[in-house]
Amino acid sequence: MHSSKHISSLHNPLIKKVLLLKEKSRERKKTGLFVLEGMRELQIANRTNYEIDTIFYCANILNDVQNNRFLKSFNPEKLISVSNEVYKKLAYRDTTEGVLAIVKSKDHFVSSLKFSHKSPLVLIAEAPEKPGNIGALLRTADAANLDAVLIANPKTDLYNPNIIRSSVGCVFSRNIKMGSTTEIVSYLKKEGFQVYCAALSASKEYTTVDFKGPTAIVVGTENSGLSDEWLQNSTQNIIIPMEGEIDSMNVSVSAAILIFEAKRQRKLNI
Amino acid sequence: MHSSKHISSLHNPLIKKVLLLKEKSRERKKTGLFVLEGMRELQIANRTNYEIDTIFYCANILNDVQNNRFLKSFNPEKLISVSNEVYKKLAYRDTTEGVLAIVKSKDHFVSSLKFSHKSPLVLIAEAPEKPGNIGALLRTADAANLDAVLIANPKTDLYNPNIIRSSVGCVFSRNIKMGSTTEIVSYLKKEGFQVYCAALSASKEYTTVDFKGPTAIVVGTENSGLSDEWLQNSTQNIIIPMEGEIDSMNVSVSAAILIFEAKRQRKLNI
Repeated sequence: MHSSKHISSLHNPLIKKVLLLKEKSRERKKTGLFVLEGMRELQIANRTNYEIDTIFYCANILNDVQNNRFLKSFNPEKLISVSNEVYKKLAYRDTTEGVLAIVKSKDHFVSSLKFSHKSPLVLIAEAPEKPGNIGALLRTADAANLDAVLIANPKTDLYNPNIIRSSVGCVFSRNIKMGSTTEIVSYLKKEGFQVYCAALSASKEYTTVDFKGPTAIVVGTENSGLSDEWLQNSTQNIIIPMEGEIDSMNVSVSAAILIFEAKRQRKLNI
Repeated sequence: MHSSKHISSLHNPLIKKVLLLKEKSRERKKTGLFVLEGMRELQIANRTNYEIDTIFYCANILNDVQNNRFLKSFNPEKLISVSNEVYKKLAYRDTTEGVLAIVKSKDHFVSSLKFSHKSPLVLIAEAPEKPGNIGALLRTADAANLDAVLIANPKTDLYNPNIIRSSVGCVFSRNIKMGSTTEIVSYLKKEGFQVYCAALSASKEYTTVDFKGPTAIVVGTENSGLSDEWLQNSTQNIIIPMEGEIDSMNVSVSAAILIFEAKRQRKLNI
């Protein structure tokens, strides 16, 4: 690997910039940049047309031939070699193959939503807070090959390092849009979606509704559920019957049960 | 609240004992004791016949009338008041209502397994490592009211504080047994269970198998899957079709999808 630059000082301004981008959502918004860690994440972001701004690699850790070859495919101007000490300061994880990158964010406007077929299946999460939950939702969306994931009234920016990590790169590959609940509801109505809100009141068992048309499955937070705006615009509230002591499951678990029931029904239709 | 004892010193030997029990699995095994945090957890443990050894409460935090009444139902000899400083040192969480307890473990021998009906539905997790995953599995087991959860070749003791916390007390209320894979396989065969192993090879789609008889759903770890011993004793391997970039979901998510498909089928049968 030949890079024109090498950084071994923790006080280098670029290093400080990376740390700021990892830690501060405000900085990510201001600059339109974010940081990813790991070879798999870099590969997925690259393949899905994210613009890679700068790649930092630690030659002592990056010892895989294929990984080296992949990095060589980038403009050498974008590559910066860093010392072990600097890499350790930058990396959250021990298992990220010696690679980090600064990457340009994409827009996620609801208005840009397009579908490739007539009966899309989309997941909507209102105001999810925990990055780990968002990551798990995106992994499920990937497994089910959902047509889109919409985040309504977002509380967290999508390029939070914990979302990137817990989504295992699905944050780059999935079709994700973010907007207000009002905007998303209006879009869904216009497009003729069935809106199924996961809710406790006025609900039918999730196995008894028809998920085969254009379908939006809407989930809220574990603590406060969905806003009135969603419930007022629900085609039908749905519920997973709970038979135990505890009256809730993790939101990513509930969403997965609903999504895979929809998938099951859709296969019967073929 | 009237307790005969009050502790305000961090050096008190009982305080050190609590910390040791929280941190060291070895200490929990040696003494047959563990520590729980939180009023809900204490209530569930008490209702499910766990023997409560000692309750620590912080009067400044414990300001709920019902909670006070509940604590008064215990032998005052078991109650110890602690200072804010001591409570803060003992508690992992900020939201545990000022209550911690030392509690006696139960045995979880496979040989003591009993079922109340003829077609039990059980979840088996082999060698699960992350306490958060085990907690999520137990919450799902609770929601589905599974007849048992069996942990094969356990890597973690059940009374790990993170399992207690992430299970929201379900670790006390569910029917949980632990044993070697060999022991559990032998039990299932003797009892005529259908053993459905979640695995990638020689698998049928999970929606196409019959979960209505005595059923064991068996899941391994995300990294290494199930051991050969399970695969050799599988009635049928099952798979959730993955259609995306990533070839795995979180184990608690996968298990939930399988369990709720079994629940769906069983309802059709009624």
